[in-house]
Amino acid sequence: MQFAYCANLYGGMVIGQAVLGEVGITGIEMTNIENACAGGATAVRKAWWDIASGLYDAGIVIGVESMTNSPIAGKLIPPARGDITGELGMNMVARFAMAQRRYMDTFHVSLEQIAGVSVKNHRFGCLNPYSQYRKELTVAEIVNSRPICEPITLLQCCPSSDGAAALVLVSAALARRYSLRPVVIAASVLRSGDYAFRWEDMTLSDMTCKGAGSAYEMAGLGPGDIDVCELHDAFAVNELMHYVELGFCARGEEVHLLEEGATDLGGRIPVNTSGGLLSKGHPVSASGVAQIAELVWQLRGQAGGRQVAGAKVGLAHVVGGEVTGLESGAVGLHILKV
Amino acid sequence: MQFAYCANLYGGMVIGQAVLGEVGITGIEMTNIENACAGGATAVRKAWWDIASGLYDAGIVIGVESMTNSPIAGKLIPPARGDITGELGMNMVARFAMAQRRYMDTFHVSLEQIAGVSVKNHRFGCLNPYSQYRKELTVAEIVNSRPICEPITLLQCCPSSDGAAALVLVSAALARRYSLRPVVIAASVLRSGDYAFRWEDMTLSDMTCKGAGSAYEMAGLGPGDIDVCELHDAFAVNELMHYVELGFCARGEEVHLLEEGATDLGGRIPVNTSGGLLSKGHPVSASGVAQIAELVWQLRGQAGGRQVAGAKVGLAHVVGGEVTGLESGAVGLHILKV
Repeated sequence: MQFAYCANLYGGMVIGQAVLGEVGITGIEMTNIENACAGGATAVRKAWWDIASGLYDAGIVIGVESMTNSPIAGKLIPPARGDITGELGMNMVARFAMAQRRYMDTFHVSLEQIAGVSVKNHRFGCLNPYSQYRKELTVAEIVNSRPICEPITLLQCCPSSDGAAALVLVSAALARRYSLRPVVIAASVLRSGDYAFRWEDMTLSDMTCKGAGSAYEMAGLGPGDIDVCELHDAFAVNELMHYVELGFCARGEEVHLLEEGATDLGGRIPVNTSGGLLSKGHPVSASGVAQIAELVWQLRGQAGGRQVAGAKVGLAHVVGGEVTGLESGAVGLHILKV
Repeated sequence: MQFAYCANLYGGMVIGQAVLGEVGITGIEMTNIENACAGGATAVRKAWWDIASGLYDAGIVIGVESMTNSPIAGKLIPPARGDITGELGMNMVARFAMAQRRYMDTFHVSLEQIAGVSVKNHRFGCLNPYSQYRKELTVAEIVNSRPICEPITLLQCCPSSDGAAALVLVSAALARRYSLRPVVIAASVLRSGDYAFRWEDMTLSDMTCKGAGSAYEMAGLGPGDIDVCELHDAFAVNELMHYVELGFCARGEEVHLLEEGATDLGGRIPVNTSGGLLSKGHPVSASGVAQIAELVWQLRGQAGGRQVAGAKVGLAHVVGGEVTGLESGAVGLHILKV
């Protein structure tokens, strides 16, 4: 290994260096990345470019988060300091609850229909040995679970998680030497912007729309070419909105896409086969790295009971940042292919 | 601007994104870096490579730290979690106090001689309008100041600081268009390793020695070519040790170099003309960026009363990381020239 990136949010000072020190990697270039929920994707992008540009041939990317052992253990993710609307109560779940209410009203979608995302992703989670939760849920269980911020109930939320994921990235020449089925990064995009929603329309993320456009252009592919997708389902409703932003369907057709099984196993674009953030869990900075790991397994035919038959192209999508006040954030997108 | 890096350590989640959101930069690629005291240098290196590799033409690097408004305000920098020796008391100053005692004993150096570093750097600080402290100190004041961890007294330590620094980096073509005296990054090195001292010898940093070797090789220059240097004087004694590691003198000759005025204005290699961490201050992640700013001013002849006449090549050096336990850390080195 010639370099390493460690994505981490809550570990504080030098946890990345400590992690890497412990596994015995010293002397190499080593960088800690903090980009909120997009930290893992940011680290993958940096590593990708270090290799794609010819600076290095081989490196490692680690995403690691212990939320149960962090200063925010057991709490809602706190607002950034100085974020006045955040401190007045506009936290992540409040922001998305407002968006969900608007979405339900505009597109005549019921809570039961939104819960369908969580049902699907928890079913996938049962098929993933690395999933935090491996238990099927019913629509009734989800809708009737403890209210967090109406209309969002507990089982529409991703959990607090401890977790880690790692990738080894190498040049094309090295990949051909060591792998019978190398997976190529065909596009890597990191973009900042309004966190998740344009103020004009809370239910559509301008940032993800533009980022996805860049990613498809870079890969020379379109939404119709994606065989399998890991996207940022921090809350169940987000998955539906991201369907549109990533180009999988037109606005207002999200629930139809879900209910016809298009995003389930056997459908045309299975989404969050890992279980997603909802079931696999969301160890913040690890999530973006774990998404890529899931896609690699899918593209190599190593995904076991959740394998998407013949998957050749995968898309990973995470958003991160502050939801309130300044509305600043990041989106990370990667397209992988074999 | 096509991209931005923000180095920050203690601000916590998304402070970098908030900072950049506030100045109105959105849509571009934006990355938060955390590499302890080496964070600023790490951000500069990443930005340098994004341009040198042809990915982008222009970007901004920000280093920002508010220590007085951080969870560690008024405290010693705490050990990383799980760092047992750190929690037993082996903090930064304890570690360097041991090294200083060994150094004084091995090379027959007095406390008064080590205080000479602080005298020089505080004198330089008086000439820098951006310095946190602008007051000359005497050897007696330094030696007799409050003991922190013997033999280190208060005025041998860098202070806790609030501060920020920013750089605009552009491609060579753009630089020629917009600047009459463009400053070129001739070498950029980021290396991990034992934080500051090999265990065999606490008074010599293997990491800095090797990093400096790489930087000189990359620039095609040697220590004798450096006209001005900003180095990591977190404690006064560190500056002396770094003289050797950076190749400015042989071991045991550090105090002689200082006392003959070689590292003062008019000497052959003025060191820490900004006032260094000791006088200018040490806002952790800003320091590595501020060092480069100082060198740019020096190489452009804009350093006012502290100007090094005819300076054409500058070296910036920071170390960061954990001092105890795992002894993992980073060194960042940049060589600039006109």
